[in-house]
Amino acid sequence: MLIVMHAEATAEDIARVCGTIEEMGYEARPMPGRQRTTVGLVGNDGRVESSRIEGLPGVQEIIHVSKPYKQVSREWKPEPTIIQLSRGVTIGGTAVVVMAGPCSVESEAQIIEAARLVRAAGATILRAGAFKPRTSPYSFQGLGQKGLELLGRARNETGLLIVTEAMDAEGAEKVAEVADIIQIGARNMQNYSLLKTVGRLRKPVLLKRGLSATIQELLLSAEYVLAEGNPEVILCERGVRGFDTATRNLFDLSAIPVVKSLSHLPIIADPSHGTGHREMVMPMARAAVAAGADGLLVEVHPNPERALSDGVQSLYPAQFERLMGEARLIAAAIGRSIATGK
Amino acid sequence: MLIVMHAEATAEDIARVCGTIEEMGYEARPMPGRQRTTVGLVGNDGRVESSRIEGLPGVQEIIHVSKPYKQVSREWKPEPTIIQLSRGVTIGGTAVVVMAGPCSVESEAQIIEAARLVRAAGATILRAGAFKPRTSPYSFQGLGQKGLELLGRARNETGLLIVTEAMDAEGAEKVAEVADIIQIGARNMQNYSLLKTVGRLRKPVLLKRGLSATIQELLLSAEYVLAEGNPEVILCERGVRGFDTATRNLFDLSAIPVVKSLSHLPIIADPSHGTGHREMVMPMARAAVAAGADGLLVEVHPNPERALSDGVQSLYPAQFERLMGEARLIAAAIGRSIATGK
Amino acid sequence: MLIVMHAEATAEDIARVCGTIEEMGYEARPMPGRQRTTVGLVGNDGRVESSRIEGLPGVQEIIHVSKPYKQVSREWKPEPTIIQLSRGVTIGGTAVVVMAGPCSVESEAQIIEAARLVRAAGATILRAGAFKPRTSPYSFQGLGQKGLELLGRARNETGLLIVTEAMDAEGAEKVAEVADIIQIGARNMQNYSLLKTVGRLRKPVLLKRGLSATIQELLLSAEYVLAEGNPEVILCERGVRGFDTATRNLFDLSAIPVVKSLSHLPIIADPSHGTGHREMVMPMARAAVAAGADGLLVEVHPNPERALSDGVQSLYPAQFERLMGEARLIAAAIGRSIATGK
Amino acid sequence: MLIVMHAEATAEDIARVCGTIEEMGYEARPMPGRQRTTVGLVGNDGRVESSRIEGLPGVQEIIHVSKPYKQVSREWKPEPTIIQLSRGVTIGGTAVVVMAGPCSVESEAQIIEAARLVRAAGATILRAGAFKPRTSPYSFQGLGQKGLELLGRARNETGLLIVTEAMDAEGAEKVAEVADIIQIGARNMQNYSLLKTVGRLRKPVLLKRGLSATIQELLLSAEYVLAEGNPEVILCERGVRGFDTATRNLFDLSAIPVVKSLSHLPIIADPSHGTGHREMVMPMARAAVAAGADGLLVEVHPNPERALSDGVQSLYPAQFERLMGEARLIAAAIGRSIATGK
Repeated sequence: MLIVMHAEATAEDIARVCGTIEEMGYEARPMPGRQRTTVGLVGNDGRVESSRIEGLPGVQEIIHVSKPYKQVSREWKPEPTIIQLSRGVTIGGTAVVVMAGPCSVESEAQIIEAARLVRAAGATILRAGAFKPRTSPYSFQGLGQKGLELLGRARNETGLLIVTEAMDAEGAEKVAEVADIIQIGARNMQNYSLLKTVGRLRKPVLLKRGLSATIQELLLSAEYVLAEGNPEVILCERGVRGFDTATRNLFDLSAIPVVKSLSHLPIIADPSHGTGHREMVMPMARAAVAAGADGLLVEVHPNPERALSDGVQSLYPAQFERLMGEARLIAAAIGRSIATGK
Repeated sequence: MLIVMHAEATAEDIARVCGTIEEMGYEARPMPGRQRTTVGLVGNDGRVESSRIEGLPGVQEIIHVSKPYKQVSREWKPEPTIIQLSRGVTIGGTAVVVMAGPCSVESEAQIIEAARLVRAAGATILRAGAFKPRTSPYSFQGLGQKGLELLGRARNETGLLIVTEAMDAEGAEKVAEVADIIQIGARNMQNYSLLKTVGRLRKPVLLKRGLSATIQELLLSAEYVLAEGNPEVILCERGVRGFDTATRNLFDLSAIPVVKSLSHLPIIADPSHGTGHREMVMPMARAAVAAGADGLLVEVHPNPERALSDGVQSLYPAQFERLMGEARLIAAAIGRSIATGK
Repeated sequence: MLIVMHAEATAEDIARVCGTIEEMGYEARPMPGRQRTTVGLVGNDGRVESSRIEGLPGVQEIIHVSKPYKQVSREWKPEPTIIQLSRGVTIGGTAVVVMAGPCSVESEAQIIEAARLVRAAGATILRAGAFKPRTSPYSFQGLGQKGLELLGRARNETGLLIVTEAMDAEGAEKVAEVADIIQIGARNMQNYSLLKTVGRLRKPVLLKRGLSATIQELLLSAEYVLAEGNPEVILCERGVRGFDTATRNLFDLSAIPVVKSLSHLPIIADPSHGTGHREMVMPMARAAVAAGADGLLVEVHPNPERALSDGVQSLYPAQFERLMGEARLIAAAIGRSIATGK
Repeated sequence: MLIVMHAEATAEDIARVCGTIEEMGYEARPMPGRQRTTVGLVGNDGRVESSRIEGLPGVQEIIHVSKPYKQVSREWKPEPTIIQLSRGVTIGGTAVVVMAGPCSVESEAQIIEAARLVRAAGATILRAGAFKPRTSPYSFQGLGQKGLELLGRARNETGLLIVTEAMDAEGAEKVAEVADIIQIGARNMQNYSLLKTVGRLRKPVLLKRGLSATIQELLLSAEYVLAEGNPEVILCERGVRGFDTATRNLFDLSAIPVVKSLSHLPIIADPSHGTGHREMVMPMARAAVAAGADGLLVEVHPNPERALSDGVQSLYPAQFERLMGEARLIAAAIGRSIATGK
């Protein structure tokens, strides 16, 4: 950490900054420059409360040199994390995993049909919500516990693994009983109570980037899970808030190479929420694979115009099938493949 | 709701849209224009799942005419909501209420000293966090239950009312035992499980706007609380995510007149988080009063350079005193006053 | 255009709105609904000054149904525009065109070397700035007229076509004498005087999206060029302003399918400015091809660490060569190819 | 400037960075830390092309300690710039100057009437556009030269000073003949050719902040004008692009104290464009004065529902009169006044 002093800071100001740093248990190293002095704080263990220093007289700016996260960083663990799921499915290796299915579990018939068709097209993981976070209290809120049971049946029926969202501590434990991956939604990315809860469960966690979260904040939220003892976190880009209403969100595909350079955790992409329109899901799913995503999370519905939620961004079965074909070619172009499981 | 059809939509496409609307239980009213047809959906009760229609062939765009929120709207209740707290304090009337105190409860001595000095300067409500949502798992996380007890003592000692944050269902119940107002932080604005919990408690709720929440989303989150039976919600503008790092957040003061025009709920402003720098808190607090805020939420610390969190945005006691003087004059300029309690 | 009235608007308010519409020369069609009346404005020719109506008593909101642009729209011209350049190069057809070269022309040796190496790797158009818009007045501002002459030599030497930026009317005429495509930079996207000037020249225009321009605004700026009589506009996504400083800009690849659905104009992508870091240019260039871009604009420098501008986002020659190989495979995966010229 | 090296950077990497710095004519000062080395660049004169260094092997990040602007900074000139206009009007001192008038000059009768009524209410400067930058080529583009002549008549008639926009070099010279202040609009904030032109004219310049410009970019654009020899620049906050469509722009009032801390130049606020709705102009204009703005730029029209542009955000004359009364009280509350001229 570097403390940049004002050009007119006095020797006393500088001494006070050094004194405060030492009082906090770190070493202070003042470096006089031509126009101003900067003071280095040496020994930063990621617990420095910089706002104590930032407010001192004569301080112009604090510059953070070390990253505030630890266990999620490439410097902590250089080789990529590969998460082993059952049935031979892995996330984070060479194979790109495809998670597909409807926005919500709506009925037994619907979820079984959806599972069969995404399985037939080549997906290895079924996605569908039982607990649904909806912007309006009057929107369909999901089937809850009943939805989880139906997901269990779809799993038995098709052999697909399951990823589904938990919205609170109680729900997380229920989800953990049925699902192979617990999803934390974008709106709960900084719900630290929930992050701590899933950090204590022994299930991989799919952590979606919040609507206005920086990559650093996403990594710090993952750090909450790792800090509780759960190293199996899959990050997910799903679009951030932008200023243009032409798409539902602003799908930030650059997040994929950025995360890859900073962290060893796998990162997948959700072009369905990232764009919000079926016709854009296809090109952006292809783009995500080309950009190096470790997986795709795609909404597919047997009958989108009857979907109880997100119909407009759900692919038709035939579209999904075509997408899988294109994805295989693009993965091959960059030396990867689409995961098939056993 | 209006469904705008593509210029080249066929008669069949239009008929399908009308049929779907009727199947959903509403009335369809097609309106042929010069270039294209639009179809009105009549009878919208706020529960229409528009994405079912948005994905139909020939549909270009869905336009929402009705607002998706109900009970929080001015149309539902034209007169402003005035929340009655104990000791004669009200929020939402003519008097502007000032909530002040440190970011976190740190110790008995600190919180009692802070309470006394903000009381002396004219605040009526003490703010301080016991449960702290921190971006990093390694930052100070607050004193928890112990912090709540110290807030209770500060209340007894000074007569100030208490506002403090809850981060989960369990915490909300604990907070409700001690505090006069339960705060829901920006990061939890769309934590719907928590919103439902506080909607069932009988305590006023201070709901902070999320970092990238639109006003409509803020109102919909408030609607969650009202829909559970708790009509006492105070909204709070605290800055949104912007592109300029010159300030911590982008303090969106226009939210105050916007909320006033759309909703009957009171809205206050938090210039401390809104700007992130002590020197900017003063002018922006004044601006908030001038813009019509029903209250201020301000961080004040007896000794900011020793604060365990947010020191750089905490006012010195003398600054807070000066601010109160200026706020009184500005309130008077627009026919209001600063709340004094009994 | 639809005018949504307040629930409590009076009959007189509605009559006034209808009267104003008719006074402006359009037809008014009031549509009473269950909660409120909406008034349709029929005959909108894109010249309606809606703010006259928006401010009338009883008006809640104006909803624009027609798009404000005309000649750039798919509805105006359904088939894609294919721009014919010399030497058999086309933009907007099946072949994806690659424009590559250094940020700035620095010297004869540098630009000739750069031209040769991008030509050898398979580019068909040379990009390099002679007039440079720089955020600081103290940064290198380009070689100006001398730079244009050097570009002319590089053209003669290698057979590459030239794209280079113009910053004002005078510069546009000079650029038009040497270059095959006149570039309008992001900062000048809404410099309407300049747009009108290049609209009157007979050269294709490469129009870069402004830092905070919506797609609609980008299309309206293109409309300025077409409205002056020049139909040859190539749009370019180059990143918008985001809130995360991890990348230079937020590269909005979804703009490609969005533009494709709304307009017949070709759109290319600039991953160099879109990301700002060499290591991210490779994956995002691949992603752009996968998303359906009609071309790439990539910074390549024979010796990036000696570049006078943008060195950090310039590819090394070997990287560019590898990128070209990957781009060919990805283009093939979606039924396209990389343009080769004659 | 500080160059932060990767934790695994080699001694050779560090030596290369130091060599490059010295080759560029500056002094390199390596500072080994516990985890990584940082290298200080000493002697930065604002002309360092950091991207040459940023791309070197082993470099993790470049940190800019010095600000890139010079003459506009408080460090360059600590006392505030006070611009002297004719008729005793000054901008940047204690008095807050009010510039008011219609969006566009529409006719002689309209502009004279507007000038008289804003004069009567207490404004000292008349605003109105002759050259209008409009998003659509089909919108009213202003009266041009004829509009300038009408502004001259309004000046003679009422004694108000004139501020009006120039969109290109030719227009700037025409505007300079008639107006007291040349306005550069938000869309042209980074039109460097135009900035250089007005930097060579001898007239004060009102420079509006671009839609997605950081404060630093705004100051660098002002630096262009000062660097050409014109020290009389007035900055203007007029709203930035936000994600919420509830207002036309996101009015960033914090820009006022931020600019005040970084620069000696005066800064005014434009609540009309900042909000886009007449009803929000009143509270936000009051807020701007409370936040410390040196002036207001407000749209007022004798008959807003007949305005050819921006009618919905133009105040009615009676509203403007009330606003002036409130502004006087708020200015007094913070020890200022509203400018009256001679």
